[in-house]
Amino acid sequence: MAEHGKSRTEKLGLPPGSLVYVGEKPVEKTIISYLLYEQEEVREAVIESIAELPDTPSGDGVLWIQVTGLAQIAWLKELGQRFALHPLVLEDILATDQRPKIESYGPYEFIVLRAFHHEIVQHMADQEQISIIWGKNFVISIQERQSLLFGSPYDWIHQNRGTIRTGGSVFLTYALVDAVVDRYFTFLERFGEELEDLEEELIAEPTQQTLQRIYRLKHAMIQTRKATWPLREVVTRLDREEAPEIRGQTGWYLHDIYDHIIRILETVEMNREMLSGMLDIYLSSISNRMNEVMKVLTIISTIFIPLSFITGIYGMNLLIPETSFPWVYPFLLLIMFLIALGLIVYFRKKRWL
Amino acid sequence: MAEHGKSRTEKLGLPPGSLVYVGEKPVEKTIISYLLYEQEEVREAVIESIAELPDTPSGDGVLWIQVTGLAQIAWLKELGQRFALHPLVLEDILATDQRPKIESYGPYEFIVLRAFHHEIVQHMADQEQISIIWGKNFVISIQERQSLLFGSPYDWIHQNRGTIRTGGSVFLTYALVDAVVDRYFTFLERFGEELEDLEEELIAEPTQQTLQRIYRLKHAMIQTRKATWPLREVVTRLDREEAPEIRGQTGWYLHDIYDHIIRILETVEMNREMLSGMLDIYLSSISNRMNEVMKVLTIISTIFIPLSFITGIYGMNLLIPETSFPWVYPFLLLIMFLIALGLIVYFRKKRWL
Amino acid sequence: MAEHGKSRTEKLGLPPGSLVYVGEKPVEKTIISYLLYEQEEVREAVIESIAELPDTPSGDGVLWIQVTGLAQIAWLKELGQRFALHPLVLEDILATDQRPKIESYGPYEFIVLRAFHHEIVQHMADQEQISIIWGKNFVISIQERQSLLFGSPYDWIHQNRGTIRTGGSVFLTYALVDAVVDRYFTFLERFGEELEDLEEELIAEPTQQTLQRIYRLKHAMIQTRKATWPLREVVTRLDREEAPEIRGQTGWYLHDIYDHIIRILETVEMNREMLSGMLDIYLSSISNRMNEVMKVLTIISTIFIPLSFITGIYGMNLLIPETSFPWVYPFLLLIMFLIALGLIVYFRKKRWL
Amino acid sequence: MAEHGKSRTEKLGLPPGSLVYVGEKPVEKTIISYLLYEQEEVREAVIESIAELPDTPSGDGVLWIQVTGLAQIAWLKELGQRFALHPLVLEDILATDQRPKIESYGPYEFIVLRAFHHEIVQHMADQEQISIIWGKNFVISIQERQSLLFGSPYDWIHQNRGTIRTGGSVFLTYALVDAVVDRYFTFLERFGEELEDLEEELIAEPTQQTLQRIYRLKHAMIQTRKATWPLREVVTRLDREEAPEIRGQTGWYLHDIYDHIIRILETVEMNREMLSGMLDIYLSSISNRMNEVMKVLTIISTIFIPLSFITGIYGMNLLIPETSFPWVYPFLLLIMFLIALGLIVYFRKKRWL
Amino acid sequence: MAEHGKSRTEKLGLPPGSLVYVGEKPVEKTIISYLLYEQEEVREAVIESIAELPDTPSGDGVLWIQVTGLAQIAWLKELGQRFALHPLVLEDILATDQRPKIESYGPYEFIVLRAFHHEIVQHMADQEQISIIWGKNFVISIQERQSLLFGSPYDWIHQNRGTIRTGGSVFLTYALVDAVVDRYFTFLERFGEELEDLEEELIAEPTQQTLQRIYRLKHAMIQTRKATWPLREVVTRLDREEAPEIRGQTGWYLHDIYDHIIRILETVEMNREMLSGMLDIYLSSISNRMNEVMKVLTIISTIFIPLSFITGIYGMNLLIPETSFPWVYPFLLLIMFLIALGLIVYFRKKRWL
Repeated sequence: MAEHGKSRTEKLGLPPGSLVYVGEKPVEKTIISYLLYEQEEVREAVIESIAELPDTPSGDGVLWIQVTGLAQIAWLKELGQRFALHPLVLEDILATDQRPKIESYGPYEFIVLRAFHHEIVQHMADQEQISIIWGKNFVISIQERQSLLFGSPYDWIHQNRGTIRTGGSVFLTYALVDAVVDRYFTFLERFGEELEDLEEELIAEPTQQTLQRIYRLKHAMIQTRKATWPLREVVTRLDREEAPEIRGQTGWYLHDIYDHIIRILETVEMNREMLSGMLDIYLSSISNRMNEVMKVLTIISTIFIPLSFITGIYGMNLLIPETSFPWVYPFLLLIMFLIALGLIVYFRKKRWL
Repeated sequence: MAEHGKSRTEKLGLPPGSLVYVGEKPVEKTIISYLLYEQEEVREAVIESIAELPDTPSGDGVLWIQVTGLAQIAWLKELGQRFALHPLVLEDILATDQRPKIESYGPYEFIVLRAFHHEIVQHMADQEQISIIWGKNFVISIQERQSLLFGSPYDWIHQNRGTIRTGGSVFLTYALVDAVVDRYFTFLERFGEELEDLEEELIAEPTQQTLQRIYRLKHAMIQTRKATWPLREVVTRLDREEAPEIRGQTGWYLHDIYDHIIRILETVEMNREMLSGMLDIYLSSISNRMNEVMKVLTIISTIFIPLSFITGIYGMNLLIPETSFPWVYPFLLLIMFLIALGLIVYFRKKRWL
Repeated sequence: MAEHGKSRTEKLGLPPGSLVYVGEKPVEKTIISYLLYEQEEVREAVIESIAELPDTPSGDGVLWIQVTGLAQIAWLKELGQRFALHPLVLEDILATDQRPKIESYGPYEFIVLRAFHHEIVQHMADQEQISIIWGKNFVISIQERQSLLFGSPYDWIHQNRGTIRTGGSVFLTYALVDAVVDRYFTFLERFGEELEDLEEELIAEPTQQTLQRIYRLKHAMIQTRKATWPLREVVTRLDREEAPEIRGQTGWYLHDIYDHIIRILETVEMNREMLSGMLDIYLSSISNRMNEVMKVLTIISTIFIPLSFITGIYGMNLLIPETSFPWVYPFLLLIMFLIALGLIVYFRKKRWL
Repeated sequence: MAEHGKSRTEKLGLPPGSLVYVGEKPVEKTIISYLLYEQEEVREAVIESIAELPDTPSGDGVLWIQVTGLAQIAWLKELGQRFALHPLVLEDILATDQRPKIESYGPYEFIVLRAFHHEIVQHMADQEQISIIWGKNFVISIQERQSLLFGSPYDWIHQNRGTIRTGGSVFLTYALVDAVVDRYFTFLERFGEELEDLEEELIAEPTQQTLQRIYRLKHAMIQTRKATWPLREVVTRLDREEAPEIRGQTGWYLHDIYDHIIRILETVEMNREMLSGMLDIYLSSISNRMNEVMKVLTIISTIFIPLSFITGIYGMNLLIPETSFPWVYPFLLLIMFLIALGLIVYFRKKRWL
Repeated sequence: MAEHGKSRTEKLGLPPGSLVYVGEKPVEKTIISYLLYEQEEVREAVIESIAELPDTPSGDGVLWIQVTGLAQIAWLKELGQRFALHPLVLEDILATDQRPKIESYGPYEFIVLRAFHHEIVQHMADQEQISIIWGKNFVISIQERQSLLFGSPYDWIHQNRGTIRTGGSVFLTYALVDAVVDRYFTFLERFGEELEDLEEELIAEPTQQTLQRIYRLKHAMIQTRKATWPLREVVTRLDREEAPEIRGQTGWYLHDIYDHIIRILETVEMNREMLSGMLDIYLSSISNRMNEVMKVLTIISTIFIPLSFITGIYGMNLLIPETSFPWVYPFLLLIMFLIALGLIVYFRKKRWL
């Protein structure tokens, strides 16, 4: 929660339903555009005021309102009045630290998702809250930032691919959720590359930074799980609540999304176990390096300390009889060489060398 | 349980329903005030005896009785008689080591919550037990201490904001629970700052104190979870039991509180995983420092022990032929310098330097 | 299971329902007393034979038979015949390694509990099996040892406090279970003091004994959990099975006991997590001490090994030109002093000193 | 799976229902005996061919066929034809790596259990598969080896103890399952003794072998849990499926077995936690020993390295003024003695000595 | 997810139901063959175009179409048209990173399985996706590679063994699933041999490579669990959905497969716990080796450092009275020998030698 700190605290003491932007990133300017499509035609525009919005179509037509940026709270209020949104819905859209959820408000459903962006700057997940309001013949999608997240559904509509134009608001909602979930795969692929890179670093030359990287990647996985886990419930409820309508048209597609979510969660879990394994490797490589350092010290000390002792003996200012023998110096050098050799052989046998 | 030790033990042997204050903090003087409001008007007073309390209103009116401090047990007994409270309810109000719960006593509901205060003195959670008794047209809130905890609902009533004056005792109860839960966010934000501070300390210069800090923060998170976990059940049961009444007016607000609780629990869980990760970093940084110490020792020893051996050889009182050569001293110095240089190059290659 | 070893093995090969005492502690002499009470009067006696037992009362009267000590198996058999107890009930009473449970035998319920005694001798939980047989108008409580465990219900009956005399056998059963559960709080308080003591020892001067203490305390917590966990089911089933009777009179008291059990389990869980944290502190303090030892060694070696090398140079029996200079000795001492000083400054900067 | 390796692989490619012995132990010769009992009489014989088997009795009579050893597959086939057993039942009897289970095949139930033998050779669990086929008026028990496992039910029948002769095949089945479960207690007692022995070894003088012993004991506990866990389901289903018949006669006995299984599982879990604790003690004792070694090295080095430096100074071939003073030698010895003393006092204070 | 990286990302932006091969291995050439069998006769052929496929038989006949290799997407499309397969089914067949699942599409069921191949190249699980489409009178099996995986069902059909020819498409489906599950046993046996080999390496001479091997084996177990876990649901749903048909004929066989899956999962879990145990042994063996290195260093240093000090004393250029005594040299040598001896005895007692 630390990251949304100040604003949450500032919100304390306001009655529920108060509209205040809660989030740590700079708020982007609000841009509202719409896309009105029927089987035959597509109309679209960027609007300057809510009043410019066309009427909600009837029949097969769908009005898709895209909002990006949350700076103009007034616009959101107007939008709320136009579509009779509950104050809590607007509050949740602005408080961008929501967890993924789906809430049924009678005439419309309110879905909150979290999207990841590609850049793993500093190995941390960069998140954005996506709100979707979905009613009969209209869908409102609210993003924090301008992005190409919903580029594919947008293109499909224009290209009239598949059943998107005839599927109604239900199918569009599915396509939006699918677009968000597909982002997770891209994110996890980048993450997988990070992991491979980390694995190499771990084997080549692990440092204290490697540990901090493991720690940060673990943290990113915890956040990913936090953002993905509730999605299961979202999709399950999407499936259950609108049984007759969805089953026929989009039931299989929902199953498909559900399947993707499960796979994402499994991958997250697998990544976490791999990171745990990497931690073990890291810790043991520290121990191994200490072992190596110790061995060098021990080998050098064990060879030279006894030899120095021998030189010490003959350095004493005593009457030492053998000092007067002529070959004692080369003989001593030989003895010391043999001792050193013996110790080296011993270390070889112990596999220290 | 250790902290409420003496009193719990003293209570042993008393029949259930005995009124004794159980808690470790000094008991505060009891102050009772009331707030009687209808859509049109608000009346309030601090009272000196229970007899001064106005009659419980009918219709839309709500009588909110605020009790702070648990010193005057006699007053609580009178209050219990006035509202026909079960002896166990009074007992639980006084035994301030309860876990959060909701119990339905027919004409009224009894809710126990735990509130955190802002100061993380010694990084430990400072808790207070909040009891709420909620019946038709009246709400009794009992706090251990004077505080601004219920400042916001109080202000909303006076300012007649939102639907608080017309929502009845149900809505007030919701607002009180919400006020307590909102405190957790503030607490978790402070905690988040602590964590960031700890993270910096961990990277800059970890000491044995760092470990104890991690341990205490972990302990605080365990206590937070202990205080938050049962809240889920409290809110779920609030939602379920009073289905028709609440659904209409406050159902969404309860969902909102529930959502907050889940987010608090997820944050607690994430904090705990981060603290585990910090422990790993701490432990590995100890190992790393030992590695560094060992390296210094090994480098110094490995360089000078062989050199000292050489000096030892020429310190022997033997007939050593080469000692009489004129350039032997500078030559030896050169040799020793080259040995030292070689070893330094070797350590460089091993990345010890 | 190791502790009840011999007897369990000896029991092998006997048909189910055989009466043999299973337990590791010396068996205490059996003492049987009864307490017969109605709203108006109380009668009690210690009996010498089962035949002395008064008839089971009718109406509101309750016959409470207290058995302590399991040495006279014959008496238990007679008691079993008198109240038509199932052979497996008698077998379980004697085999004192049962886990807590409740079993409904039609005309009576059979409850097994485990009570802790106060002394944490050797930090290990000292347990006793408590069996309660509860039928209409009678309650039989069987303890392994003479103790004041049921002192409070006994006193309440004599003092006619609360509703105990009119509550029937149901209420007495509740009071007995409550008395056992209350003991857990006392035990956990002692345990909490142990923990605090351990925490101090851990910070002041941890030894290998500290680790064994942590290990034993952990073991005690595992046993406590083992003894408490099934209690939840016992109370839940007490509540469910006798719905109409209990709900009215003692339902809330059962809820209260249930609440206590949950709190005990949470405390046990918290203690275990704290013990895990202590283990981490212990292990890291070992590493820290090794670090400190290494530092002393490294500092001393790093200062004196190079200095000794210098003295070694001038100890060589070579023609060393500078040896003939007059100020070379004090100059060398100065050099060596500066080297030592430099190294000390270096260690200061590295915060090793 | 490794231990049944070859045979499982060899079985690949055979259609389901093929009869092949799967197991790693040498197959024992098949011996088939029967025991036919009614309330009044008992008849028994070891048979040489399946044709010698008496007719399945009617009324209260029970035919108990004991098969030990799985070498004569032909006999099993004949037995299968006689009692119309499903091919998969015969396949499972021969593939002795089954997990405990109960399967209802209409006219009979098929139960698989795993029995432990007493010897903890190499601290590993020595298992045997026990198959029981139980129909109206007949029970077939199949063991891999000759053993006294079913000695007690056999004796009870002969001695006509309890209700065994009148309980029908249901009661006999219960008695056989009970006999197998009782073995677990004996096994766990032996295991408990092993644990105590290990604990002593751990405190007295832990070696690398201690760790391998912990590892093997852990492995044995995992296998025990694997063999016991599914038993809960077996007994639960025994209880549920034959509700009317069993409830009356053997319901309580099944509860008793169930209770035993739960206790076994709890003991297994406790043993595993104790083994984890022992691992911690082992690892910390390694660290402690390293600490001790380091201390000896540090003490010796720290005392003698500075002293050697002093001797080095006066060993230099320089003009050192003080060397000509008469008392300098004893004075120096005194100085060095005081330095050594000071260091020893310092180590004492640091509690290294 | 990393391994299917590029293709998944490339698939982004395509509408659901687009046919693109997703996988990291080179795609194999598509070969399609069929096997048409009734009770009386078997017909088979490798076909060059989908048009060559015979009509789906009626009655008891079954058409089994085997597809190996996924290179010719066009063929799959034709096959999809012929059998009216849902676009998502075709998409899943081509995206070879599916998790095992079963999906009911009305006239046919779609099953995805993962098969392991025998070679544990680099200790990593080598997986292949197996898709099975099963309708009335036809079964389509799709493999990524040519292999003998379905050799046994193929042979059974030809040899007319068991009930395979009369069991219909249900029984064939069962036989295919069984063939895949049986592969897991073979895989786990190889894995078991790996584990034993690793265990030996661990005891004989563990290196950093041993740790990486543990890590890779753990990873393989995680993948195995990931591939096996969902199989439980597959078999459970197979059992449930087609209740009347399957129960009679293949119900027991499904139970048998289910049992195998449970055993595989238990073995995987056991392997993982064993790998954790091995990690502990590995880490402690590193510590033990460091202990050993330290001991050698300490013994050598502790013996020779004091002796060198003694030689240092008599190397000083001072007036040392005892130097003039005649027997001082051999006496000193004796003293030094006794000191060394004493230290060796001391180390023996400490069990360092």
